[in-house]
Amino acid sequence: MNFSSKLLENAVNEVSRLPGIGKRTALRLVLHLLKQPKENTKYLTEALNSLRNEVKSCKKCHNISDTLLCDICSNTNRNEEIVCVVEDIRDVMAIENTGQFRGLYHVLGGKISPIDGIGPQNLQIESLVEKVKKKEVKELIFALSSTMEGDTTNFYIFKQIEKYEVTTSTIARGISVGDELEYADEITLGRSIVNRIPFEQSIKG
Amino acid sequence: MNFSSKLLENAVNEVSRLPGIGKRTALRLVLHLLKQPKENTKYLTEALNSLRNEVKSCKKCHNISDTLLCDICSNTNRNEEIVCVVEDIRDVMAIENTGQFRGLYHVLGGKISPIDGIGPQNLQIESLVEKVKKKEVKELIFALSSTMEGDTTNFYIFKQIEKYEVTTSTIARGISVGDELEYADEITLGRSIVNRIPFEQSIKG
Repeated sequence: MNFSSKLLENAVNEVSRLPGIGKRTALRLVLHLLKQPKENTKYLTEALNSLRNEVKSCKKCHNISDTLLCDICSNTNRNEEIVCVVEDIRDVMAIENTGQFRGLYHVLGGKISPIDGIGPQNLQIESLVEKVKKKEVKELIFALSSTMEGDTTNFYIFKQIEKYEVTTSTIARGISVGDELEYADEITLGRSIVNRIPFEQSIKG
Repeated sequence: MNFSSKLLENAVNEVSRLPGIGKRTALRLVLHLLKQPKENTKYLTEALNSLRNEVKSCKKCHNISDTLLCDICSNTNRNEEIVCVVEDIRDVMAIENTGQFRGLYHVLGGKISPIDGIGPQNLQIESLVEKVKKKEVKELIFALSSTMEGDTTNFYIFKQIEKYEVTTSTIARGISVGDELEYADEITLGRSIVNRIPFEQSIKG
């Protein structure tokens, strides 16, 4: 692109570094900011800088937090002995929205993915094994997405902790509530039949 | 969304104010910045702030510029007597890319659009009429996108200048009606400038 302004070119280049944002979209976003009052750009950049420089990682669950111990980990009403293993904060938010889980989380920060250069040492796995070793945890719930990377990560962690006294489970895979059977994929439908649950149990939820 | 961090929530809210960016996309972008080195966020926010606070509007054509007179207007090799009327910088970039135009531009800053509250007084129309009045311009080429707003704007300007001695033309209808200039291919757009037709003729069709 042939910009008439170095300032504009520089801003477009920086914005287009963001994932899923091409040059054209970046230009559209930057021109939008130019049409808005200067305060809007100030608020946006201040919010990004504050976040990047001040945000912390909870020392217990490694979730994004404003404090050293996050709100969930510091809540004494929650059951410390049940820990749900997730990939990132988006999974924590999704599970919290259900209102069905009263335990704590452990945020790995990703999944094992050799193709992206992410090995076990890049994730918060050691501190999870440490929790299990110290008998702080009675049950681990694996809630990673069921992709090859997710399954690999689950299995890697399982191998590290199987010698210790801890119950492990994974979230149930099955047909979504409200979905038609005929459109479900075969693997999901197959699992939902193998892992069927007593009818009485299903009507309680 | 239920964020565990005020800093995160604030950043997501600010990013999602941008056009076409929802809360989920904003969260994805912000989490990406958190995974990158701090410098990346610094460069991004510095580029946006510099642009917003330092960029100028060329005093002659009103295009975005780093200097008071833009590169195109200060280029003595260009024909000052032919002025191409466009909506914004994206149109200037698109026409410049064709290499078919050696005149100057006049950037209106938008199109007349009552539904968005944009009237002639919000656009750089008065200074254009002034140029014509002072006989600085021999030919005006209307290159607004051929939407209802573009046609309205062309016609409004035409009515203001028809009493003065100036040739008016519009770019040829090689561009599909309703399409935006910035997405047109260079050959079609280049030809449409070479084959421009008198404005009177265009409004008959």
